[in-house]
Amino acid sequence: MSSQEALALGILEEIAALSRDVAGVTREAYGEGEERAMQAIERRAAAMGFAAERDRYQNLWLRLPEDARTEPPVVLGSHLDSVPQGGNYDGLAGVLAGMLVLDRFRGRAAAAPPLRVLALRAEESAWYGKAYTGSLALTGRLPAGALALRHRSGTGTLGEAMARSGVDVDAVARGEALVGAHDIAAWLELHIEQGPVMIARGWPAAVVTGIRGNLRHNRVVCHGEAGHSGAVPRWLRHDAVLAVAELLSRMDEHWRVLLQMGMDLVMTAGICTTNAASHAVSVIPGEVQFSFEVRSQDQATLDRFFDLFRQECDAIGGARKVRFSFDERLASAPATMDAGWIARLEAAGAALGTPVERIPSGAGHDAAVFAGSGVPSAMVFVRNAHGSHNPEEAMEIADFLAGVDLLERALSDYAGSAPR
Amino acid sequence: MSSQEALALGILEEIAALSRDVAGVTREAYGEGEERAMQAIERRAAAMGFAAERDRYQNLWLRLPEDARTEPPVVLGSHLDSVPQGGNYDGLAGVLAGMLVLDRFRGRAAAAPPLRVLALRAEESAWYGKAYTGSLALTGRLPAGALALRHRSGTGTLGEAMARSGVDVDAVARGEALVGAHDIAAWLELHIEQGPVMIARGWPAAVVTGIRGNLRHNRVVCHGEAGHSGAVPRWLRHDAVLAVAELLSRMDEHWRVLLQMGMDLVMTAGICTTNAASHAVSVIPGEVQFSFEVRSQDQATLDRFFDLFRQECDAIGGARKVRFSFDERLASAPATMDAGWIARLEAAGAALGTPVERIPSGAGHDAAVFAGSGVPSAMVFVRNAHGSHNPEEAMEIADFLAGVDLLERALSDYAGSAPR
Repeated sequence: MSSQEALALGILEEIAALSRDVAGVTREAYGEGEERAMQAIERRAAAMGFAAERDRYQNLWLRLPEDARTEPPVVLGSHLDSVPQGGNYDGLAGVLAGMLVLDRFRGRAAAAPPLRVLALRAEESAWYGKAYTGSLALTGRLPAGALALRHRSGTGTLGEAMARSGVDVDAVARGEALVGAHDIAAWLELHIEQGPVMIARGWPAAVVTGIRGNLRHNRVVCHGEAGHSGAVPRWLRHDAVLAVAELLSRMDEHWRVLLQMGMDLVMTAGICTTNAASHAVSVIPGEVQFSFEVRSQDQATLDRFFDLFRQECDAIGGARKVRFSFDERLASAPATMDAGWIARLEAAGAALGTPVERIPSGAGHDAAVFAGSGVPSAMVFVRNAHGSHNPEEAMEIADFLAGVDLLERALSDYAGSAPR
Repeated sequence: MSSQEALALGILEEIAALSRDVAGVTREAYGEGEERAMQAIERRAAAMGFAAERDRYQNLWLRLPEDARTEPPVVLGSHLDSVPQGGNYDGLAGVLAGMLVLDRFRGRAAAAPPLRVLALRAEESAWYGKAYTGSLALTGRLPAGALALRHRSGTGTLGEAMARSGVDVDAVARGEALVGAHDIAAWLELHIEQGPVMIARGWPAAVVTGIRGNLRHNRVVCHGEAGHSGAVPRWLRHDAVLAVAELLSRMDEHWRVLLQMGMDLVMTAGICTTNAASHAVSVIPGEVQFSFEVRSQDQATLDRFFDLFRQECDAIGGARKVRFSFDERLASAPATMDAGWIARLEAAGAALGTPVERIPSGAGHDAAVFAGSGVPSAMVFVRNAHGSHNPEEAMEIADFLAGVDLLERALSDYAGSAPR
């Protein structure tokens, strides 16, 4: 076992032990488990000889103390919070990767650009219903109204929890950015893949092309007409279940075709249900409620597929004499990763003899916030069995170190080529 | 207004008033509203000069006292109970029709076969989960276990309620038939249509060809695999909602084709729902539960369509790597109405200058019990807006009297032609 492998396993195990829950780990945003992880990273950083400092929003910054350069650094990192009873790698792996990279350039800082490691808080929306809180606050983009969001338990607000953690909440409320686009040369984030693609393809690590945006309705209702299941013939039915079945089958087929045309797209109706208050085996279903979500790296694909969805609703509504009603359409814009850094990471893979593939990120990451703030951003994914947000996350340490190798090599190449 | 029209409206209004609920009418099986209706019919029968008698199972029989013939009578009737907060016509119209027919043959009994009117109890399954209780007990076919069925409120059993109503429960439990197939020449039942077909077609009255049987699963589960809605691409998904959507869309299309081939068939998935404990907008649905019911007048059609359903489950399960599991398959056999009486009722319509169409009954009726007991049985449907089992039932009195005309004429023709 290499020393870095032992170091990584030690830190992962220590922080898992500090945040262990009935199942998996729990590191609540601006809460106990996250703070313990933060302090553990501070102790480890001190032991490794890094300078550590918390900003006014209680994010943690690490650097090599001997590196006195003042130009904008490349920042490596991710978040330290987790979902309730989540896995140990989602977020933590990215902070740890930054620490190992920093370690590798110890005593030879000039071989890399100026580096910082950033351990962010509160990326998970599970606690207050808002994702990216730490990175949004840091870049001055957290809406002031978010501070009033209530905890998932119903008691207490995000603002109160931030204040208890020592965050300068007034500055957050004013939208005061602690860093701007010109303060950071790039954001590099290693993260476990949250889907099964890399396991299925046999890729240890991959380069992320972009973070999918989405369009969604949380609640579409198909209004048909209830009736006796035996007494109403087909030509007089307005069956909401069969209408929604046809709608989703048509969209599924359009999706298949668009994928074959090379578009990036996923479509999900995660909730789909007849009305529990009135449905029955022998009653023609008069109402179905469902959610509809589309994700893509390409905004035009999102817009067009959603238009198609609405057109199919109209067509089926007309043919079956049912009516569709829609709640507010929610949108999250796609984020594109920096082409230069994608190329640099690919070149690093080739140079290391382990060519890496490109993959889109379907889940959201702090990298989307930095990219949206104008910071050139890139991500390395590490394969991971069993998805994320559950105790079964399973990242192999060898795969993780392969991801760290990519980051180290890309940073070396950047230092060797970039104008200084 | 004819005297029979005034009489019919008076009886309908009286019994509606006696059984009025917050909405609609409530005549509980072996309960208060049903007993009040029974007593009102007894009072009206006395006023109309009919002989009235309750049998040991507390069903009510009416006849013309002057008719001393002893050969098996033709019995006209239906049931007096209703669903909770139901409509006034479901059941009551058939008893009333029998009374008007009896009234028309008063003083000239020989112009018809021997006649009885039968007001049955407890046809609705809404109270104890068992349909046709009154007619099944009468014909000795109520399973003894049914007496232990609990009331919809959870308190008290069917047997207890029957005993309170004065039913000889021991005889019911022994399966003692009060009438057999040889005791009744025919069963004729007028009933409101419980679907919208006759309103849509403009038919005041129609002749029922048969009562649809059904095959059903109350609970089929499609087991897929949950996952992050953004992070799992189409080729690695096992989406239970899209699988069920494809299944139901295929069955819907098969249904359409089979109807065009002339088969009698309706298909309903009245319950269809993702798992409320785990579904979410951004989670690929891992499980869908749904009901599946098929009804037809033809047993072979039922069996074949159900086989097709299972084959499609297998095909979709294989293609999408999902799994379907099934609870117990429940069956109810179709009942065929008597060809002679169908022809007689059609001839009656033609003779009256109002040709009548044939229609299947999708809902169940006591006529299915008599037919199943070997009694030649027939039904006349009267059009009715807004379906049944709700306060909005809307039968026009003119349509009802057209149905009574059919019964009267068919009985006259039968008396004139049948060997005596």
